[in-house]
Amino acid sequence: MAMFDLSPADLLDYRPEVAEPADFDAFWLRTLTAARQHESAAELTPYDALLPGVRVTDVRFSGYDGQPVAAWLVEPAGAEGPRPCVVQFIGYGGGRGRPHEWLLWPAAGYAVLVVDSRGQGDGDTPDLAGDTTPHHSGLMTRGVLDPELYYYRRLFTDAVRAVDLAATLPGVDPARVVVAGASQGGGIAQAVAGLHPGVAAALIDVPFLTHFRRASEITDSYPYQELSVFCATNRDRVEQVFDTLSYFDGVNFAARATAPALYSVGLMDDVCPPSTVYAAYNRYGGPKTMQVWSYNRHEGGGSFQSPVQLRWLRELFG
Amino acid sequence: MAMFDLSPADLLDYRPEVAEPADFDAFWLRTLTAARQHESAAELTPYDALLPGVRVTDVRFSGYDGQPVAAWLVEPAGAEGPRPCVVQFIGYGGGRGRPHEWLLWPAAGYAVLVVDSRGQGDGDTPDLAGDTTPHHSGLMTRGVLDPELYYYRRLFTDAVRAVDLAATLPGVDPARVVVAGASQGGGIAQAVAGLHPGVAAALIDVPFLTHFRRASEITDSYPYQELSVFCATNRDRVEQVFDTLSYFDGVNFAARATAPALYSVGLMDDVCPPSTVYAAYNRYGGPKTMQVWSYNRHEGGGSFQSPVQLRWLRELFG
Amino acid sequence: MAMFDLSPADLLDYRPEVAEPADFDAFWLRTLTAARQHESAAELTPYDALLPGVRVTDVRFSGYDGQPVAAWLVEPAGAEGPRPCVVQFIGYGGGRGRPHEWLLWPAAGYAVLVVDSRGQGDGDTPDLAGDTTPHHSGLMTRGVLDPELYYYRRLFTDAVRAVDLAATLPGVDPARVVVAGASQGGGIAQAVAGLHPGVAAALIDVPFLTHFRRASEITDSYPYQELSVFCATNRDRVEQVFDTLSYFDGVNFAARATAPALYSVGLMDDVCPPSTVYAAYNRYGGPKTMQVWSYNRHEGGGSFQSPVQLRWLRELFG
Amino acid sequence: MAMFDLSPADLLDYRPEVAEPADFDAFWLRTLTAARQHESAAELTPYDALLPGVRVTDVRFSGYDGQPVAAWLVEPAGAEGPRPCVVQFIGYGGGRGRPHEWLLWPAAGYAVLVVDSRGQGDGDTPDLAGDTTPHHSGLMTRGVLDPELYYYRRLFTDAVRAVDLAATLPGVDPARVVVAGASQGGGIAQAVAGLHPGVAAALIDVPFLTHFRRASEITDSYPYQELSVFCATNRDRVEQVFDTLSYFDGVNFAARATAPALYSVGLMDDVCPPSTVYAAYNRYGGPKTMQVWSYNRHEGGGSFQSPVQLRWLRELFG
Amino acid sequence: MAMFDLSPADLLDYRPEVAEPADFDAFWLRTLTAARQHESAAELTPYDALLPGVRVTDVRFSGYDGQPVAAWLVEPAGAEGPRPCVVQFIGYGGGRGRPHEWLLWPAAGYAVLVVDSRGQGDGDTPDLAGDTTPHHSGLMTRGVLDPELYYYRRLFTDAVRAVDLAATLPGVDPARVVVAGASQGGGIAQAVAGLHPGVAAALIDVPFLTHFRRASEITDSYPYQELSVFCATNRDRVEQVFDTLSYFDGVNFAARATAPALYSVGLMDDVCPPSTVYAAYNRYGGPKTMQVWSYNRHEGGGSFQSPVQLRWLRELFG
Amino acid sequence: MAMFDLSPADLLDYRPEVAEPADFDAFWLRTLTAARQHESAAELTPYDALLPGVRVTDVRFSGYDGQPVAAWLVEPAGAEGPRPCVVQFIGYGGGRGRPHEWLLWPAAGYAVLVVDSRGQGDGDTPDLAGDTTPHHSGLMTRGVLDPELYYYRRLFTDAVRAVDLAATLPGVDPARVVVAGASQGGGIAQAVAGLHPGVAAALIDVPFLTHFRRASEITDSYPYQELSVFCATNRDRVEQVFDTLSYFDGVNFAARATAPALYSVGLMDDVCPPSTVYAAYNRYGGPKTMQVWSYNRHEGGGSFQSPVQLRWLRELFG
Repeated sequence: MAMFDLSPADLLDYRPEVAEPADFDAFWLRTLTAARQHESAAELTPYDALLPGVRVTDVRFSGYDGQPVAAWLVEPAGAEGPRPCVVQFIGYGGGRGRPHEWLLWPAAGYAVLVVDSRGQGDGDTPDLAGDTTPHHSGLMTRGVLDPELYYYRRLFTDAVRAVDLAATLPGVDPARVVVAGASQGGGIAQAVAGLHPGVAAALIDVPFLTHFRRASEITDSYPYQELSVFCATNRDRVEQVFDTLSYFDGVNFAARATAPALYSVGLMDDVCPPSTVYAAYNRYGGPKTMQVWSYNRHEGGGSFQSPVQLRWLRELFG
Repeated sequence: MAMFDLSPADLLDYRPEVAEPADFDAFWLRTLTAARQHESAAELTPYDALLPGVRVTDVRFSGYDGQPVAAWLVEPAGAEGPRPCVVQFIGYGGGRGRPHEWLLWPAAGYAVLVVDSRGQGDGDTPDLAGDTTPHHSGLMTRGVLDPELYYYRRLFTDAVRAVDLAATLPGVDPARVVVAGASQGGGIAQAVAGLHPGVAAALIDVPFLTHFRRASEITDSYPYQELSVFCATNRDRVEQVFDTLSYFDGVNFAARATAPALYSVGLMDDVCPPSTVYAAYNRYGGPKTMQVWSYNRHEGGGSFQSPVQLRWLRELFG
Repeated sequence: MAMFDLSPADLLDYRPEVAEPADFDAFWLRTLTAARQHESAAELTPYDALLPGVRVTDVRFSGYDGQPVAAWLVEPAGAEGPRPCVVQFIGYGGGRGRPHEWLLWPAAGYAVLVVDSRGQGDGDTPDLAGDTTPHHSGLMTRGVLDPELYYYRRLFTDAVRAVDLAATLPGVDPARVVVAGASQGGGIAQAVAGLHPGVAAALIDVPFLTHFRRASEITDSYPYQELSVFCATNRDRVEQVFDTLSYFDGVNFAARATAPALYSVGLMDDVCPPSTVYAAYNRYGGPKTMQVWSYNRHEGGGSFQSPVQLRWLRELFG
Repeated sequence: MAMFDLSPADLLDYRPEVAEPADFDAFWLRTLTAARQHESAAELTPYDALLPGVRVTDVRFSGYDGQPVAAWLVEPAGAEGPRPCVVQFIGYGGGRGRPHEWLLWPAAGYAVLVVDSRGQGDGDTPDLAGDTTPHHSGLMTRGVLDPELYYYRRLFTDAVRAVDLAATLPGVDPARVVVAGASQGGGIAQAVAGLHPGVAAALIDVPFLTHFRRASEITDSYPYQELSVFCATNRDRVEQVFDTLSYFDGVNFAARATAPALYSVGLMDDVCPPSTVYAAYNRYGGPKTMQVWSYNRHEGGGSFQSPVQLRWLRELFG
Repeated sequence: MAMFDLSPADLLDYRPEVAEPADFDAFWLRTLTAARQHESAAELTPYDALLPGVRVTDVRFSGYDGQPVAAWLVEPAGAEGPRPCVVQFIGYGGGRGRPHEWLLWPAAGYAVLVVDSRGQGDGDTPDLAGDTTPHHSGLMTRGVLDPELYYYRRLFTDAVRAVDLAATLPGVDPARVVVAGASQGGGIAQAVAGLHPGVAAALIDVPFLTHFRRASEITDSYPYQELSVFCATNRDRVEQVFDTLSYFDGVNFAARATAPALYSVGLMDDVCPPSTVYAAYNRYGGPKTMQVWSYNRHEGGGSFQSPVQLRWLRELFG
Repeated sequence: MAMFDLSPADLLDYRPEVAEPADFDAFWLRTLTAARQHESAAELTPYDALLPGVRVTDVRFSGYDGQPVAAWLVEPAGAEGPRPCVVQFIGYGGGRGRPHEWLLWPAAGYAVLVVDSRGQGDGDTPDLAGDTTPHHSGLMTRGVLDPELYYYRRLFTDAVRAVDLAATLPGVDPARVVVAGASQGGGIAQAVAGLHPGVAAALIDVPFLTHFRRASEITDSYPYQELSVFCATNRDRVEQVFDTLSYFDGVNFAARATAPALYSVGLMDDVCPPSTVYAAYNRYGGPKTMQVWSYNRHEGGGSFQSPVQLRWLRELFG
């Protein structure tokens, strides 16, 4: 995509006006309060992943409206806590996958709680009643005509509840709960950093769900393209769409966050364009570091990013 | 796509084995019986479409599980019945649209009942509770792991109920109810022809939803590609998917139909490949005619097909 | 295409310099005067379109150089005039098609005169002697090295003559002749609005043939790309090409128009880029309204545009 | 394109039925006889190409219906005849170009007569009156509904007349006139080899215009795709199209040829698929050699083919 | 790619003739013997990967011609041997990467020796003197005109030497050395299984470098396309190319293997087409199992394949 | 690509900062001095190209590090010298080809020395020991991490040595040695114009290897894309790459040139974007002319450029 977006210099100062509804905080307070009234003990079931080096637990916890949300808890086998816990969120279309995909954090001495995305992945966490089949596209516009019904209201709430859970897990140090993710997962981590004061650190890679309006105008790549296609078809409801999205824009969450954050961005990323990432980063409320990958698209740092994160967390947590 | 499928000669004799579950008829009898127990009077509301030449009615009738389904009824203004009624089904992603799109049949002296597709189009007919935003892709695999939950169980039931309704509309001759559609609409018309004995004639253009297995193996085009992608992701449930689809395969519906049918096919159609169309046509149970368009893709006869249909119906109904 | 062109705000003020030859008006006066000397009675032949709701007439009228041009006249059956008449022009590659494609205006109580495009469509109107086969591409550069020989000199003249004819048709109110079209059809309607003082209103959707130079520089989409390809091959005649085109540029026609006009534009339209549309609109000489479709490409308002037009005309004509 | 066509072994025996009209020979006899009645002396004008090593002549000769056709005659400067002459035909869209493009044959001691293609190239040879702008696509279907009006009737006639001319040029040995070309040029050379008994040898590279029906069914590449697109649009005239083309099919010309021929073919050629080349080659009436390029597409032997040809001609002419 | 290759049923019996040079075994005996004469102690350097759960060693061992080859040795931290060792080979373009990418086998209780690919990856293992920059494409044809010089002669030799090394590593059970890889890595594992009698088991996923000739003829996808492009350009050396490749064809290695093997294949894999995989599998000399992924392309089983492998190895090794 | 780069007006003034190492001149002085110490007589072997009109010589001369480099010398047969000599460099991936491809300059009365590109073309000039197979892509990043090892250090040195040779050839006028090439060949000609004071004129068409940084940021087309891909993969060495390239940037060579130069540029060239061409042209040190092709991509003037060059040289040399 070459460098199709703002120049590297302009990105550093990019602070666009992004719509924020007057009742943004009230909306989320009401939403999260309602979800937390459904508190019930998570179900924790040991799982044999054929991997003696780690201890794997199949988790179901209470998410939006008390609905069950699946997760994997993967910890170093035989090691003692308390240890930090990374709450890992997933890219668009995917779910918690299989436990053997999540060995990095345990090898580094962390627990990892891998949170399924409702209606995505392998179907372990249905979104709507009657819709048990997972989706790999199309959720971005589910319910987008109404903030109450928008898909990400439910998904972000699940994510906040996952952090609630992590802090209570045996062997987890509640003062060192980290949120992490790339793309949609980065967008979720960013939202949770803005919604949950208990987050100790945030690893936000090439985040999605951030400055929707600009994204929908400057890229033809999916999944933002789902939004553009929706607006093209529903020509007469474009403003209604963006009214809804203003409750879910990563820029608004970033401004409310206080935990230290390590971001990454690809300057040639057409999926989550760098200006949308910087729009949030430049307003992020906590201490922050940006890892720039100049010639990369949405893969960002790829496997180079993990050592950067391990080192950053080692410094943060001592 | 050149002629990527069977040769024209081989198509004429193509009669593949297509899976049919032992309880196919029981499944559908049970499904339709349940839906018909929800009978309630349709809501008919006059609508000003700025078109004095036709009379437009906004219809809500009882579909699957008694859920409300939207439709447009468009009739010649000022003319007297009884007249034939075309029950029109819609292509994938679309809905009943706006009344001014449906002027052909009224100009020809017919009533037309344009049936919305739940969860598609403009959102006038939601599919699942909580999912009020229409979809333009992705529905093909909704619920595909279970015949009870599969999306097309609900959509085909709505369509059967639309025919029930059409036969009772004032000014409509119940002996001349025609089902019609192209692509998904053709697949629906074909299914209804196999499910509803009151159908007087079927206009089935380049039908979708027919010989799913072959389609998923020979084309990379959407929407069948949604099925292939789903099977690629859900690698471990491929047979479960096709077990579900065997209850919805157009080949099995065609074999049960008895009304006269006019089909059309594009020999270079990569969206609904000709072998899948002939797989159904060659087993269609009623009198039948195939209109072949040799160099056409999924557009089939395009605007050439309407005069063919008008003439065929004039001969059929006298 | 994302929003690849000027920003919405900049479009509102976009008034580029567009070349206009000193003898522009003389050129067209001479051209039209010559054509009108060929006046002869149009041939009107009733046509059975299998549609009792409308009255269809197959028309041949005298166009450029007195050559016969085909058209369909479609009117409400049995209704009385005088009624308004929409003179409908067609998009690039197409022709008058078949009568059943033109039922909107009769359903709305209008007559519609659907004007074939010479050398395009189904071949009912040949362009050059010996070239009876219709073209679906390539005409944009036919004769482009000489204004006298350029294809659109002939086509625009045909279009002006169609308006001459419409005003004389029985049942048509000569004070309410409307020109209409989309894409090439919009470009023709715009040209006729600038050339024919008898036009009562113009419906100009996503017009083509407007600000050729900019279009050829900012889009790779067809049909403007035909122009770019021609200039790439005929590297040594680029200025000659644009000299010719200055006699045919929609910007120059728009500046001469006086009838009320309803335009539409798609802000992501790569076929007829929005800056080229606004270049004409901003200089349009009559009362004008722009219908903007923000997330749409060349489809513009699609089927949403018709009700907008019906309502606008109802207000205009009372 | 991988090897998408018949296997190499099957190509060797590929002898499909290709339609040949009963009056094929009468049609061409009548056509050529009429053209030859227009005989007039060619105009030969010296041309300064800034190339002292060759003598360049700008030629206008009498083609179809006596219309003037442009050509370049390029000969070794200062050398004495009689020498052989290659009559060179051009690929689709191109024309005779500029003299410096045609230095191979003079360097080899031959004269070369480079024949412009009417309506193609730079516009030195108009096809239809009033259509002076050259075309780079679309001519393949010009007049295709009628053999009398089909474009290639005129172009093939021009080509035959070029051979007539070559044999009379000063310094040319009339017993050693060679026809040559690639793609469309190969198709023309092949046609002339079947139409003109004075041809001494034919160099036919990856010929176009050969087994139209199969080509239109197995490839999506241009220019055969122009034919498929035409048939898709003119759905109701497909057989009329192929009736016309049966008068112009290279298979039928090849069967009538008697001069020695050197063919070449690319086994991965999607533009002129190998089965269409072999369909003609296998029925070619004279002595023949096939140069196979296994992994090549339409570029065939590219620059490797010239030495093969030079050697083959050296052996043929001693 | 749909199912573009042989049908599933035909794949089961596909046993094509694949060229095998008479001196195949002599060639490889000579090659490996020469390499083993360069024996020198591997350099083992501890590496801090920020991962306390594993012990990471940076390895340099003696490969082709005694040249140094890089590898990572990753073992469970603190655990006791002897344990099995997986020798892991890498897909085309990649190298050994970073240690944190290789945590699966240690979590499962295995050591893993991740072998760099010379001239690929991050440049830790140069191929040719003076060419220290890693390549991500193009190596497939390096030296392909001569078996002595062909790139894969060196790479396969490195791989055999890696197995030599693995068997001598402290803590590794020499009777349980497994070779593993996907795509190019699968091709290498397959070659080593045919060349090294000490291999205890082979995990061969979607192998590349297998039945080159057919692959080059039926797919346009990279990297086999590099071979087709080379043959297209070097038109005159095609047979020379395939003579070289006959020394490196996975079919010939498979026939010589005796260790148990678990293969996987994607039936829609256009990168390593299923017929090429089955061509080797059907001739594989040892006990064998094929894991089929019907709707998958080159990703094959993706993350589903690892549990299949873990289970298969658990059963094999008890 | 439309006009995706700077506007024509802005191009005229485009003078960006381009990095130039302090030891740029020292680096090249050292490099060329070392190469010239390897002087040895070139091998000149007559070659029968089946073309009596020219005299062809197969040349091997001493290039970088004294390594043999192939070339063709093609001269008018039988003509007397001294005559000017064009030293012709080749586009990316190609080599000296076959003599019959180089007949233009001999026909114009010049000698032409066509210089092979090491490691490219047909393999007549190997680059690295052990790598005898020519490459058609990928060389752009060979050795790019170190100026001493970078591929173009060797290729530019070969090119300078070719000019050394040309001036000494019998029949060549050493005061009229011209360097010429397009794309990579233009980049080489430009470099040699900056490195060799004996160059009498330079023909530099659409030059590659010029303002690497901007090119890598604004185009996705190959071969600059090889650079972007390399930087995407080697994320941690981006600055190291551009440090190397600063020794090879055409902008820096152009600034040192003094011979008259004729450049050409395509304003829609996405392969060698016009801003990169103007970046060098605007700093070119000698008399200069720019031939602009407004609607052309990388083909630039194509065959129109040769007459422009012939005329320009005729004026220059009288």
